[in-house]
Amino acid sequence: MQRSFSINPIGVVRKTDDDTCIEIFDDYVDGLMGLEGFSHIFVFYWFHQNDTPEKRKTLQVHPRKDPRNPLTGVFATHSPLRPNLIALTRCKIDALANNIIEVEEIDAHDGTPVIDIKCYIPPEDEAVRLPDWVRMNREDAH
Amino acid sequence: MQRSFSINPIGVVRKTDDDTCIEIFDDYVDGLMGLEGFSHIFVFYWFHQNDTPEKRKTLQVHPRKDPRNPLTGVFATHSPLRPNLIALTRCKIDALANNIIEVEEIDAHDGTPVIDIKCYIPPEDEAVRLPDWVRMNREDAH
Repeated sequence: MQRSFSINPIGVVRKTDDDTCIEIFDDYVDGLMGLEGFSHIFVFYWFHQNDTPEKRKTLQVHPRKDPRNPLTGVFATHSPLRPNLIALTRCKIDALANNIIEVEEIDAHDGTPVIDIKCYIPPEDEAVRLPDWVRMNREDAH
Repeated sequence: MQRSFSINPIGVVRKTDDDTCIEIFDDYVDGLMGLEGFSHIFVFYWFHQNDTPEKRKTLQVHPRKDPRNPLTGVFATHSPLRPNLIALTRCKIDALANNIIEVEEIDAHDGTPVIDIKCYIPPEDEAVRLPDWVRMNREDAH
């Protein structure tokens, strides 16, 4: 299985001082029908600035580039350095109009290619275990 | 931005009568370090059986192929028909050994290409809104 697959952007992140939105390209607008029923979406985007053979070979990082976090495999993180440069983030929808999804915020730069959107449905059971570095980072954030 | 991006599988879903696991290819095993700290992972796989130009043009579906669910844009669903055939699922880790992640279950067939894995960190705030069809499908499942 060394076949590769092809991803075509369906939209782009647009950020101004006032607004943060996802612009969906005209060819894909029909895919938005019914999105107004959801408060949140999963947005998949491409870490396009890291799309070099070298960066795609990175397999271990200090999460959040913080040396206090232990060296960790990229698959145990959400690092922007990874073999396939898929980013996943959850966004709250502020408004929907035609091909524009206004969102509360998104952790992506202006111009970032968007590759998929899915409705966000929270898991019903949340008994999860997390490593210490995640908990400590969360506490730092508060 | 009509550039396309390239995805290379990092592993494959293996299912037998007794076991469900994700086999990570040798080149990517170093990316698993630290995964043992997490109980759950996000698994990204590719709906490879739908990788035809026709299926990738599908923009509206009845969720879960159930005609009682309203016709809905694929971006407001988790449909396996969509422009970029990325699947996202959350799995509970049963065991980890070398390049094998045993999982409790996964909604993918044996042989499905795995394209990314990320640690699962639940959102801290869960005030979400969902459309009626999601709630009704959930009730049906109980």
